[in-house]
Amino acid sequence: MTDGAAHRARPPSVARKVMAILDAFALGGVRLNLSEICRRAGLPLATGHRLVGELVAGGFLERVPDGTYRIGTRLWRIGSQAPAVTGLRELALPHMEDVYEVTHDNVQLAVLRDDKALVVERLRGARSVPVVTQVGSTLPLHTTGVGQVLLAFAPRDVRERVLAAGLERYTPRSITDPDELRRVLARVRHRGYSHTRDDMTVGASSVAVPIRDAEGGVVAALSLVARTRGADVRRLLPPLMTAARALSRDVALHWRVDAAGGAPLALDGSPPAASGE
Amino acid sequence: MTDGAAHRARPPSVARKVMAILDAFALGGVRLNLSEICRRAGLPLATGHRLVGELVAGGFLERVPDGTYRIGTRLWRIGSQAPAVTGLRELALPHMEDVYEVTHDNVQLAVLRDDKALVVERLRGARSVPVVTQVGSTLPLHTTGVGQVLLAFAPRDVRERVLAAGLERYTPRSITDPDELRRVLARVRHRGYSHTRDDMTVGASSVAVPIRDAEGGVVAALSLVARTRGADVRRLLPPLMTAARALSRDVALHWRVDAAGGAPLALDGSPPAASGE
Repeated sequence: MTDGAAHRARPPSVARKVMAILDAFALGGVRLNLSEICRRAGLPLATGHRLVGELVAGGFLERVPDGTYRIGTRLWRIGSQAPAVTGLRELALPHMEDVYEVTHDNVQLAVLRDDKALVVERLRGARSVPVVTQVGSTLPLHTTGVGQVLLAFAPRDVRERVLAAGLERYTPRSITDPDELRRVLARVRHRGYSHTRDDMTVGASSVAVPIRDAEGGVVAALSLVARTRGADVRRLLPPLMTAARALSRDVALHWRVDAAGGAPLALDGSPPAASGE
Repeated sequence: MTDGAAHRARPPSVARKVMAILDAFALGGVRLNLSEICRRAGLPLATGHRLVGELVAGGFLERVPDGTYRIGTRLWRIGSQAPAVTGLRELALPHMEDVYEVTHDNVQLAVLRDDKALVVERLRGARSVPVVTQVGSTLPLHTTGVGQVLLAFAPRDVRERVLAAGLERYTPRSITDPDELRRVLARVRHRGYSHTRDDMTVGASSVAVPIRDAEGGVVAALSLVARTRGADVRRLLPPLMTAARALSRDVALHWRVDAAGGAPLALDGSPPAASGE
């Protein structure tokens, strides 16, 4: 919604302004003041003020006593109904719990979205390396375990676009050379897993494996993030691969992929006996 | 946003129409066709068609090949930034994992919102009683463990409003008599936990305890949902209470409650060393 060319083509509609305001919060920063919202959304202050007021009245935004704004619980609730994400999350959670129980490290599930790894679920290892990644946040593809898996199995045009966009350095271990990354990704495809060491944060390493649908396409990546000291692939990989196979089987059974664009559809069914007690 | 009186007072603005369309998906039903969206939002078809098209273009809604619409991943991502929910979730998850590991039953965390129990996090016991409750969905207060705890410790006016609104029967065990519910809630306050048996779904029972902030106010409820056969309070309660005490301590330390409305604020800080590997 902050696409400059589209804005110039014709004046943005009110609906697009509303989306631009809400989008301002997707860029990070849980609390924004009015001028920051307007700056990010590309709106004049008066327009922003009026629309933000309406969004607060509707519970989509909340006003904090210090005068800043944040995403409201009502919007969280609507967003949490997104079936493309929640369906996969529902399938994955029991398997993620299994991996957590065996390893006690951080377990992450991510999908490819807008040339990033979008984290759709995460279990935090209470005694493992601290991870700030939140559900709904995105990670770079070239420096994370889930990212390398998603990139390795992505369509060639996505891969080349990411390589061409430049590879940011986060630590001295980050891969920033496109040719080196190509070799690493080829190894990921060959081995069936990725292994990063201190690529994103010094002291943290990860092992990640692909989740496949009925046609064998990679729809997500599952990873363990552990302290680099102690992040032994021989320890981390077996439970992760076992869970990934079980989850892939569930995905193949219960998950339909939208033929007209690759976006996963909702689950076909829910458990036979079910309770909300 | 579907408040009829407010609609009649003056014609709804475009921003309110947009919110009404998105709100249509909060009522349940992950995929809606255009006429259902317009019916729920109280909009003429032409207006709805135009605005839905804009929301699809912005990624807030997604169009499914069968012609229906669903919440888009972009909206999920924005909503997942809601700090009132995600902050609590971040604090709670490690403690919920502890309870899960000890009991292997379903662990739920809920807050009071609009006279319902809003489920903000859930771990599913793979071998426990199946639970359809999804994160972001709401449960009735009088028939669920988390609901009874939230209602027992709610302000008196909330409690009386819920009692006056009528108590729906879900199973033969549901409490539908306001006086009986008052007695049950008094017992919950006295004992410090709730215990429902087959109240919401035959075969499922739950034990729930309050989560308190620094001032002792109840900000959430934590529950275990287990098969009624085997849902022994003596087994379920000790790990649940232990985790609730630990989580309440974290809430008291890291969680500020908004003095001007009771809405919890974002966490004050994040872990010292942190990684997104």
